[in-house]
Amino acid sequence: MKKTVLAAALAAASCLAQAQSSVTIFGIVDAVVTVGRGSISNRTGLDNSGKESSRLGFRGTEDLGGGLYAGFHLEGALNNDNGTGAATNVNNQSNGGALAGLAGGQGFTFGRKMHVQIGGNWGEVRLGRDYTPVYPNQSQFDPMGTNGVGTSQVRSNLGGPTNVRASNSIGYFLPRNIGGFYGQAMYFMGENSSNAANSDDGTGMGIRLGYGAGPFTVAIATQRTEFLTGDIRTSNIGGSYNAGFATFRAMYQVDDIKGGARGKGAVMGANVPLGSHELRGSYGFYERDTAGNPKARKLSLGYVHNLSKRTALYTTVARLRNSGGSSMALNGSSTAPNSSSTGFDFGITQLF
Amino acid sequence: MKKTVLAAALAAASCLAQAQSSVTIFGIVDAVVTVGRGSISNRTGLDNSGKESSRLGFRGTEDLGGGLYAGFHLEGALNNDNGTGAATNVNNQSNGGALAGLAGGQGFTFGRKMHVQIGGNWGEVRLGRDYTPVYPNQSQFDPMGTNGVGTSQVRSNLGGPTNVRASNSIGYFLPRNIGGFYGQAMYFMGENSSNAANSDDGTGMGIRLGYGAGPFTVAIATQRTEFLTGDIRTSNIGGSYNAGFATFRAMYQVDDIKGGARGKGAVMGANVPLGSHELRGSYGFYERDTAGNPKARKLSLGYVHNLSKRTALYTTVARLRNSGGSSMALNGSSTAPNSSSTGFDFGITQLF
Amino acid sequence: MKKTVLAAALAAASCLAQAQSSVTIFGIVDAVVTVGRGSISNRTGLDNSGKESSRLGFRGTEDLGGGLYAGFHLEGALNNDNGTGAATNVNNQSNGGALAGLAGGQGFTFGRKMHVQIGGNWGEVRLGRDYTPVYPNQSQFDPMGTNGVGTSQVRSNLGGPTNVRASNSIGYFLPRNIGGFYGQAMYFMGENSSNAANSDDGTGMGIRLGYGAGPFTVAIATQRTEFLTGDIRTSNIGGSYNAGFATFRAMYQVDDIKGGARGKGAVMGANVPLGSHELRGSYGFYERDTAGNPKARKLSLGYVHNLSKRTALYTTVARLRNSGGSSMALNGSSTAPNSSSTGFDFGITQLF
Repeated sequence: MKKTVLAAALAAASCLAQAQSSVTIFGIVDAVVTVGRGSISNRTGLDNSGKESSRLGFRGTEDLGGGLYAGFHLEGALNNDNGTGAATNVNNQSNGGALAGLAGGQGFTFGRKMHVQIGGNWGEVRLGRDYTPVYPNQSQFDPMGTNGVGTSQVRSNLGGPTNVRASNSIGYFLPRNIGGFYGQAMYFMGENSSNAANSDDGTGMGIRLGYGAGPFTVAIATQRTEFLTGDIRTSNIGGSYNAGFATFRAMYQVDDIKGGARGKGAVMGANVPLGSHELRGSYGFYERDTAGNPKARKLSLGYVHNLSKRTALYTTVARLRNSGGSSMALNGSSTAPNSSSTGFDFGITQLF
Repeated sequence: MKKTVLAAALAAASCLAQAQSSVTIFGIVDAVVTVGRGSISNRTGLDNSGKESSRLGFRGTEDLGGGLYAGFHLEGALNNDNGTGAATNVNNQSNGGALAGLAGGQGFTFGRKMHVQIGGNWGEVRLGRDYTPVYPNQSQFDPMGTNGVGTSQVRSNLGGPTNVRASNSIGYFLPRNIGGFYGQAMYFMGENSSNAANSDDGTGMGIRLGYGAGPFTVAIATQRTEFLTGDIRTSNIGGSYNAGFATFRAMYQVDDIKGGARGKGAVMGANVPLGSHELRGSYGFYERDTAGNPKARKLSLGYVHNLSKRTALYTTVARLRNSGGSSMALNGSSTAPNSSSTGFDFGITQLF
Repeated sequence: MKKTVLAAALAAASCLAQAQSSVTIFGIVDAVVTVGRGSISNRTGLDNSGKESSRLGFRGTEDLGGGLYAGFHLEGALNNDNGTGAATNVNNQSNGGALAGLAGGQGFTFGRKMHVQIGGNWGEVRLGRDYTPVYPNQSQFDPMGTNGVGTSQVRSNLGGPTNVRASNSIGYFLPRNIGGFYGQAMYFMGENSSNAANSDDGTGMGIRLGYGAGPFTVAIATQRTEFLTGDIRTSNIGGSYNAGFATFRAMYQVDDIKGGARGKGAVMGANVPLGSHELRGSYGFYERDTAGNPKARKLSLGYVHNLSKRTALYTTVARLRNSGGSSMALNGSSTAPNSSSTGFDFGITQLF
């Protein structure tokens, strides 16, 4: 799962290893055959990241003594179906993301996470690009995770460029052992000039607080990103309970664009381990308050076969029903308003 | 040649290394001074990949027990003369490749090969981006390989975006020891919507079969890629014979665009090892059936000095003659129809 | 600082490490809170490379026997505030650099350095992309280095695309021990066609010679890059003296566009080590001979706290004064002609 590159003066004779510092190479390669069916068009493909997000990364930590440490984390997405990387967003604004038409020219970026951190018994500070505080609830409390055809529609929300990550951020994490409580806060900057009309666009902050005890954990998060066209606020709450035979999970989220649209969604379900196998399923919805109240409901069922701790085969099937004028569709298919869509994944994922 | 990054808890005192899993970093850096001369213009440059394709990659394999294994392979091209990467093609179609004008902005991609594989005594299945079945014959049976001024004109063919590699592919390889036979098949997808006029563009399949016995091997391959403007079929056959003092190689290929142009080409020659030195030479042609039957003939001679198993100096000279209106030219020069062109390479290549 | 990836068959039982060859992974992650203030606009951001240039690289060397060695060096910039890489320049010309508007789509390149080298007791030859001969004087003789708000304005000069690095280059370095002398020469190519009007654009050469004895070193460098619109010549001289309690540094540079503008600049100052702390300061200017003789003067003061050999906290403040119509500004702020600008950095840098 982790590979430590040893900074060792490794003498073959004396067998003395002097590990002075280290960089770890890590990653996931997940490939998936996907099928999407809708009332207008279907699509079949070989895609990536059906269960876990494919990635390649480099990270390291240095012990500075007295409980203090510093480290770095560089992690980028792999589109392992075609060889490209994935764009990042440089300013948390709509003009800071991918260039249209880049196609096969999209190089590898470290857009997933890229930060330097310093920490101690007082917590940890991170500088760079990282997940925003509302993301962990989306990820940890969705039985299908945040990948593949089964993931909650909550993630196709109104959250804007900072729904998952933010650049130019300063993050703080509470220390690990404070009686079951955990939490984090983040401030991120759009870095526009002070004399621009939209000087604060892409700037924002968020916070997440949670409590875990034994088999139970719950967490709430909220964040606001400023935009001249209307600040975006996203808040969510989620929790999980490990009953032994299964872990139950649920999450609820509200997105609110100031002076604009509002949306809300939820997902609930369970993961059932069966030796090296796992069954998982969820039900969820996402609804906007725009004309007609467009709403998408989704039922997802999945099966995972762990071939080892690093490698798994998996399959997922999901059925999405639209109403109120919604026309969401799965796996690249397209469907008419108020029609349904079905998607199917069959893939393999490997950690390294 | 290979570097294994050890996932080791390496205790300096006890000298106990617990290698649990591994990722290997590998690559080639090949730099070459190139000169191209034609009747219209000449060009001199410092380029890359004159003998071997410059690359950087990460790969790993996991033993799953019972003869089963899984692994991954990430490999991208290095333009080590200027620092850029090279674009890949995301959909096996003309609009899925490089963005024009990207220049120094072209980042590193894993466009050479990027797949996850699972295999056993029944063979191996690969998912992702990989060589198409017609490519190995072009590579293994050309005495000059597929790089530099000496490589066969067969590779400047009508094969389209899938002549060398395909994205969104599912490949199958026969197991290694089946009485000298070897082979592979690949299905790849363009992933267009089912309701598009060109819904099947970039989708195709191919197969390669070979037989090797002692110093002799021969292989045939054929593949077809669908396009609304005319399916492209490429077929080739090649073989080699190791006579001890030299290895002789020959290859013949036909490209056929349905309702369009047709081309055929061949290359033959030999590699002569002389201790740490190697002489190599080839003669080949490529001819299209369009008006005038444009044809290019090429004679290539090369010399390689292996400084070690990893590092070599090399030089190649090639002379290309055009006829029938052809105006192909070498190493970035340009030449008038039916004129000649001469190219010269002097380089160094290093594996790691 | 360095990490050696061992190509080792590491037997847990026998503890025998057979290091056959190696690739080293190395890098720096430097994150910095920056504030820029000018008469027109201010800017606050979380940026990268405030003290050292953030980077990720792979390198290796092979002993070929008889004093001969070969190696490779791949090194690219990390924009660790947002996940992008940085563009390189493929042809040493203005059209060979970054594509405008690439934003979050800019992938990682190896644009910092990317070469293969071969060397011996006669010196070293490098092929690829590397620093031009005028750069080391800018870097070694500026007390603030070449990063952050404190670096000399000399680097915002008229030097054009080859001011820091060149692609398609052939470089030669003198051997290390020749009585205190050191030096290098470089020839680089624009690689335009011979029949183009600007066939020589981006082609040039340079040389650097230095002498060091005990606490003292001095070096001169000059280079010329050809352009149809006017060749650019840059020359500089710099030196340093380690007085024990402080190291004093100074540098002077002249840039000259043939038939066009001319500029000159200088920087001087000192680095004062205080145990694990360091104070540093510099004063410099850059002046152009265009209408009004626009000139920028800058005073920089910095403090570095080394937490370890790999990790440091730092802060820098700089004040820039414009005259003669100049309107340079610091850290992304903007200021009116002849107005001032102030910048502030607070960051952390970590080597690996």
